[in-house]
Amino acid sequence: MAKRAVTMDKLVALCKNRGIIFPGSEIYGGMGNTWDYGPVGVEIKNNIKRAWWKRFVQESENSYGVDAAILMNSRVWEASGHTTSFNDPKMDCKECKSRHRADTLIEAHSKGKVNPDTMTNEEMEAYINEHHVCCPICGKFNWTGIRTFNLMFETSRGVTDENQSKIYLRPETAQGEFVNFLNVQRSTRAKVPFGIAQIGKAFRNEITPGNFIFRTIEFEQMEHQWFCKEGTDLDYYAEYKQRAWQFLVDLGFDEAHLRFHDHDKLAHYARAACDIQYEYPMGWSELNGIHNRTDYDLSRHQEYSGKSLTYVDPVSGERYIPYVIEYSIGADRLMLAVLSEAYDEETLENGETRVVLHLHPALAAYKAAVLPLQKNLAPQAKEILATLKKILPVTYDEAGSIGKRYRRQDEIGTPFCITVDFDTLQDGTVTVRERDSMQQIRLPAAELSAYLLEKTAF
Amino acid sequence: MAKRAVTMDKLVALCKNRGIIFPGSEIYGGMGNTWDYGPVGVEIKNNIKRAWWKRFVQESENSYGVDAAILMNSRVWEASGHTTSFNDPKMDCKECKSRHRADTLIEAHSKGKVNPDTMTNEEMEAYINEHHVCCPICGKFNWTGIRTFNLMFETSRGVTDENQSKIYLRPETAQGEFVNFLNVQRSTRAKVPFGIAQIGKAFRNEITPGNFIFRTIEFEQMEHQWFCKEGTDLDYYAEYKQRAWQFLVDLGFDEAHLRFHDHDKLAHYARAACDIQYEYPMGWSELNGIHNRTDYDLSRHQEYSGKSLTYVDPVSGERYIPYVIEYSIGADRLMLAVLSEAYDEETLENGETRVVLHLHPALAAYKAAVLPLQKNLAPQAKEILATLKKILPVTYDEAGSIGKRYRRQDEIGTPFCITVDFDTLQDGTVTVRERDSMQQIRLPAAELSAYLLEKTAF
Repeated sequence: MAKRAVTMDKLVALCKNRGIIFPGSEIYGGMGNTWDYGPVGVEIKNNIKRAWWKRFVQESENSYGVDAAILMNSRVWEASGHTTSFNDPKMDCKECKSRHRADTLIEAHSKGKVNPDTMTNEEMEAYINEHHVCCPICGKFNWTGIRTFNLMFETSRGVTDENQSKIYLRPETAQGEFVNFLNVQRSTRAKVPFGIAQIGKAFRNEITPGNFIFRTIEFEQMEHQWFCKEGTDLDYYAEYKQRAWQFLVDLGFDEAHLRFHDHDKLAHYARAACDIQYEYPMGWSELNGIHNRTDYDLSRHQEYSGKSLTYVDPVSGERYIPYVIEYSIGADRLMLAVLSEAYDEETLENGETRVVLHLHPALAAYKAAVLPLQKNLAPQAKEILATLKKILPVTYDEAGSIGKRYRRQDEIGTPFCITVDFDTLQDGTVTVRERDSMQQIRLPAAELSAYLLEKTAF
Repeated sequence: MAKRAVTMDKLVALCKNRGIIFPGSEIYGGMGNTWDYGPVGVEIKNNIKRAWWKRFVQESENSYGVDAAILMNSRVWEASGHTTSFNDPKMDCKECKSRHRADTLIEAHSKGKVNPDTMTNEEMEAYINEHHVCCPICGKFNWTGIRTFNLMFETSRGVTDENQSKIYLRPETAQGEFVNFLNVQRSTRAKVPFGIAQIGKAFRNEITPGNFIFRTIEFEQMEHQWFCKEGTDLDYYAEYKQRAWQFLVDLGFDEAHLRFHDHDKLAHYARAACDIQYEYPMGWSELNGIHNRTDYDLSRHQEYSGKSLTYVDPVSGERYIPYVIEYSIGADRLMLAVLSEAYDEETLENGETRVVLHLHPALAAYKAAVLPLQKNLAPQAKEILATLKKILPVTYDEAGSIGKRYRRQDEIGTPFCITVDFDTLQDGTVTVRERDSMQQIRLPAAELSAYLLEKTAF
């Protein structure tokens, strides 16, 4: 396989220089691991979300969107188990002050033969002491005890002292779909099987986020929960694996950079779970997950809320709590994968290197750039720009040589460059240059909208 | 003027029944004043955001979007003044336990003649005691002292005790545009005047939210900051007032339900400020604001960050800190106004009442509903549905009489109903019924996409 030009450093630098992604609160020295999407990045990310929504809501059979509040009733997190068990067991090395997860230490030491998920903190401490598991950083053996920290950000509703009640920033969007199961089912009169989809932010107070926008304390999830009858769940699980994969292929991913990874450790309620992993610049890692969650989620919410979430089949009269196939993908993580996949450096005939983002045209921030060959052609170019802007996002550039302007558009993945020259004045045609092939064709300006709409659809 | 049929109760009930907006965390008895957008509501809200973005980013001269993180460096809120002065001065009535804002009490008692914004808490307490300002609820005079509470939701970054640092959920999105001024300017090479736009969530820990989605603790803002040179600011302020008004008119608002409201009390740094008010079901209230904020915001961030935010004019070499014209509109508040404006009850010829949302077609959740006249026409109808779904959001309904199905679509504002009947089998045509006029035309099914795209554009 050809060596890929992309590295994380190059990507981060390009993103910053070309207005794709900036460090959050940068003029104040940043803010932990937060990132702000810039003028180009916000468009690409919105296009990613739009493509996903089109595929998994608009075009999908019996699928419905929701947009639930980030702040939810705290009982939701008791039902979901987050209040009690969304913890990392941490130990500090007293020698080098590095911090580690006890479960990760045990897994590494036992080479995966011991499963720490079933162990209490006391058992984990005992294992580490018995086996003399040393600090992987400094090699010493001098640990603090295990302390657990809930990963949910906590805040308080109400602004008087006596009137405070603890609430959380949601650590995942999924519960917004589950608690609205009844409302969606009733208001749409949907019949099982049906899906509820959501795109929204979630927050995790993690100690060790990193790898650019791969793991951040604030992130956006795109999620589709498919409610189905027990017995059909394994087929739908297989179907969603296929649909998730196909979506990535349709966005232009090379299948050689994707792989399934089945989980061998399952949550006690889960029947099957897998990731699709992507080969990021830092290596293979999770891009999205598909989980067969059985009837666990709705059963828990039925138990904790006291509201029946039992579905009654309108034909057979059968009553049951639906199973859930969850398909979840991080919008930021997909953004990172999309950028990594698109990034390339090509040597041109004149020996220069061009950096180009081979983005799917539907994901590109601007569908075209309008470029007057010379500054005195600006009025004609701006007329074309104004017409196109009514139809789709386009940009404009009149500074520097045409070659330089092409390079700028290549770097942000603009699929077409439209050059307005002196022939335009005569016959109303323009040059359209395609980003990947760099081939140019001549087209009447009046046909541009239709041409671009067709070429940039998802 | 004709009496409007809409009331808040009717709107809330319709929203709940038809999947537009549900109470947040409803199965757990709700969560303060949060709301979840349902299958129809999420589409309408997304369409509102899309229309706004198209108008104020895509079609706008020299305007750039950003999407900044909700969690920002705490120094941002020191610079903006939120840490010290984003407070409400509250007093409790010891008799009836009701809670009030001291400044509101003074304003009401003095009939607007006294400006409490310039008073300290001690001065406000003194005024209330001297003038024997009684509780507006129970009429008694028995107050607690004034207590101030910051309206920002507070949380902590870092998950160990020694490692906690206080951070806030942003109470407004504006600072995300200001702190990225340099990054946007540099990466886009934009010249002043230029704009930075953002759509995003903000949070305020208010005691008295209410009126459905009008005032909520979690809300979404759409904001455009126009950076310009001092001296041009008043003209741009006037221009943005006009643009903000025109946007609402183009969305279908009756101008009789809109009015400008100039602020007579200005923040010390502001040069001019006004709202556009809308006549909601509960009365006239703010829909959006336009503020001439001078160079206050960038100056403060320059001072607090130590980074120069001075703009250097590339032609004249002049150096200055740009003025800001801020145009800000709440997405949820606009949603409420759009729904209020669209809601109508009409008496049909047969004496029945139809509830209809006269939404701008670009805002409707579904551009069309495909309805087989009889169930055995479902295969043909679903074929048309599948074709249309690739192009734009459409829905399908085969349950009940055609009249009933029209009513259901009217209630969620679907602009077109497409009926597939026996003639469709013969000649490939369908009946297209328009929501507002209820007029029907006959159209070849093959022409539907183009027809709907044209009729539902913004």
